[in-house]
Amino acid sequence: MLNRLHFTFSDEKTKQHAFNAIRQEQQHIGYYALPEQNTAPIHDYCNTINETVDTIVVIGIGGSSLGAKAVYEFIKPTRTLKRKLYFFESTDPVNIAALLEKIDFEKSHFLVISKSGTTVETFSIYKYLFNLHRNPASYTFITDPGSPLEQYAKSIDAAVLHLPDNVGGRFSVLSVVGLVPLALCGIDIEKLLSGAKCVKESFFSDGYLKETLLTKAAFYAKHHAQYHINCLFAYSEALKYFCEWYVQLWGESLGKHQRHSAFNVGLTPIGLIGPKDQHSFLQLIMEGTRDKSVTFIKVEDFHDKTQIPQRTLEHLESLDVLNGLGFAELINMQCDSVTEALLAQEDIPVDTLVLESIDEATIGKLIFYYELLTSLVGELIDVNTYDQPGVEAGKIILKQKLKNRA
Amino acid sequence: MLNRLHFTFSDEKTKQHAFNAIRQEQQHIGYYALPEQNTAPIHDYCNTINETVDTIVVIGIGGSSLGAKAVYEFIKPTRTLKRKLYFFESTDPVNIAALLEKIDFEKSHFLVISKSGTTVETFSIYKYLFNLHRNPASYTFITDPGSPLEQYAKSIDAAVLHLPDNVGGRFSVLSVVGLVPLALCGIDIEKLLSGAKCVKESFFSDGYLKETLLTKAAFYAKHHAQYHINCLFAYSEALKYFCEWYVQLWGESLGKHQRHSAFNVGLTPIGLIGPKDQHSFLQLIMEGTRDKSVTFIKVEDFHDKTQIPQRTLEHLESLDVLNGLGFAELINMQCDSVTEALLAQEDIPVDTLVLESIDEATIGKLIFYYELLTSLVGELIDVNTYDQPGVEAGKIILKQKLKNRA
Repeated sequence: MLNRLHFTFSDEKTKQHAFNAIRQEQQHIGYYALPEQNTAPIHDYCNTINETVDTIVVIGIGGSSLGAKAVYEFIKPTRTLKRKLYFFESTDPVNIAALLEKIDFEKSHFLVISKSGTTVETFSIYKYLFNLHRNPASYTFITDPGSPLEQYAKSIDAAVLHLPDNVGGRFSVLSVVGLVPLALCGIDIEKLLSGAKCVKESFFSDGYLKETLLTKAAFYAKHHAQYHINCLFAYSEALKYFCEWYVQLWGESLGKHQRHSAFNVGLTPIGLIGPKDQHSFLQLIMEGTRDKSVTFIKVEDFHDKTQIPQRTLEHLESLDVLNGLGFAELINMQCDSVTEALLAQEDIPVDTLVLESIDEATIGKLIFYYELLTSLVGELIDVNTYDQPGVEAGKIILKQKLKNRA
Repeated sequence: MLNRLHFTFSDEKTKQHAFNAIRQEQQHIGYYALPEQNTAPIHDYCNTINETVDTIVVIGIGGSSLGAKAVYEFIKPTRTLKRKLYFFESTDPVNIAALLEKIDFEKSHFLVISKSGTTVETFSIYKYLFNLHRNPASYTFITDPGSPLEQYAKSIDAAVLHLPDNVGGRFSVLSVVGLVPLALCGIDIEKLLSGAKCVKESFFSDGYLKETLLTKAAFYAKHHAQYHINCLFAYSEALKYFCEWYVQLWGESLGKHQRHSAFNVGLTPIGLIGPKDQHSFLQLIMEGTRDKSVTFIKVEDFHDKTQIPQRTLEHLESLDVLNGLGFAELINMQCDSVTEALLAQEDIPVDTLVLESIDEATIGKLIFYYELLTSLVGELIDVNTYDQPGVEAGKIILKQKLKNRA
């Protein structure tokens, strides 16, 4: 994975500070160790799931679903997978009904994922589904050791898997939270982790990503008051759900009261898909307020030879320049053209990430790259990257409303 | 459709100016007249499409696809429609291959939508598909009268429909661009237009939406330097693609050089879906920089009676407060709870749109409401709402690259 920056940052002291902080953080933040985990227990668990099960259903929301969805939807269009994967992540009744129509309970296994075991969305849906299909063997619960949810699971004799220590939801895709549903669908989780490990080693062992990540993080942090919107412009439809994962990771980690001043700060993530969003959001980047940085993502090798035919259309001869061009080549030319147009503006920070291809190792790299970048920027803009106190107020109000109706 | 604002704007002169400008604009901007159009020609055209056709395929991008997609995806989960609707809107080869697998050429009709007839994405895909299925009777072209594309269509003896005058792509959903694919799928376009007309009349004929829209637009415009990110937080999965339509409408219309100063201004649109994005983006709104306004959208009546069962789960008794609650009631309680949490912050501009239900008239209202709001804000922040000069630079670079390879 190449990362070409079109901006610089030269204060070595800032970069050294960020690097040291992150190196230390490894002692108490759990996600850093995930690439080296022992996956044998996951495979052992997967072998307990009957071969007649053709659908995996995740009941979970936010960090419990976005990561697995990002990886699954990245790989799915390129390959026939072992099982289908669905996600119940909304209390929208129309959405629940539509999903139910796709599911055969007898051929499905349900993964109920909740750290606390009290997530309103997850348990509203679980109660509803369990009422329709009361076979505990069809459910696995993924939760904290000793949680009330684990106790419940044991009381009905259902399988339980444990979340690892000190790994927050939005950093949990490379733990059981993501790996179990992905492995059950036939995604190669060893390759996924090997990609993550490759980025981790490059960063911590003086590989080329160390300098790149530190420069990018320091630039974003220094200019966070001006360039406080960060657009990820991915030229591949397969990255649509990766963008959603990125939005949670970036927004929920970096939108905070500062640790030492309590000022409100935040970097706003926006996920875009090219070339489609050239026809939607590009105008605003090009001519709007100068508050946006843009990271382009392109896929070097789509493993695709589809070409635009050598055909002239009468009266539309100007389109002959497209003839014989591969679609894979075209989409990357489109990405390059827009990159050049933005660079010509001179006041829009731009960088490009080049992915080798569409496979597990590549998405593993991209995930760990963004996790490291988030941790670095969080440290430098002085926030606690790993909590989310701002979502509590709404939950408390909802609880009160629920009590009032009883 | 109710719209409750939790902020005020009292300068009557600004509002009067905006209202007069929009009233005048109707003389040369075409979208205002669309609610009253004669739809007989659209129905006549639809009757020419064989009943054996079960799939409509739009080849178009941006304004040529987002509007129809927003309406179709809003209605689809609630009803069995007459035909399926697919969109080819990317040059991503993996995406093209995946879509092709879903399509039976013999049972499909293709709508090629392009104002100019030179859109690179649309014609790369068209050339490819036409090479696979060379039957002109399977294609209809929607373009400007007299364009080279119309001449081509006539040369192969294919059907042609004309775009209306002075209606830009992102304002074209209520013209043939959106109405033809929707009518072919059995969506009631009369009801869609009647919804739009209802909002139009309320605005222009001193209905309650006149004051609401003017207040909201004036507030957004006055504070555009501070609250320059506008979040649309919709509590219904059915509005996911409406959000994408909104992002194009808002971003491409309002991200511009100002008319009189040439300063870069812009309002950045963000589409969110609740409750899912409470677990992703809400933290940033609650504790991040105070640069965001939030519009909540809720559906008053989901026409759904699904309830959470009256069941106690051992060790999880705290969840009993959910028992017997309808999902429709729950999702709206979640919306109300987050609204109250934001209002308690006191420095986040919030308003709520309440949709009656999920049907054509409702989405017609919502569309016209946002079109009017966009026009009003564009006038007040001094931009040309209807052009998009910023996207040309990338196109010119791409053309040069295409020529260079020849």
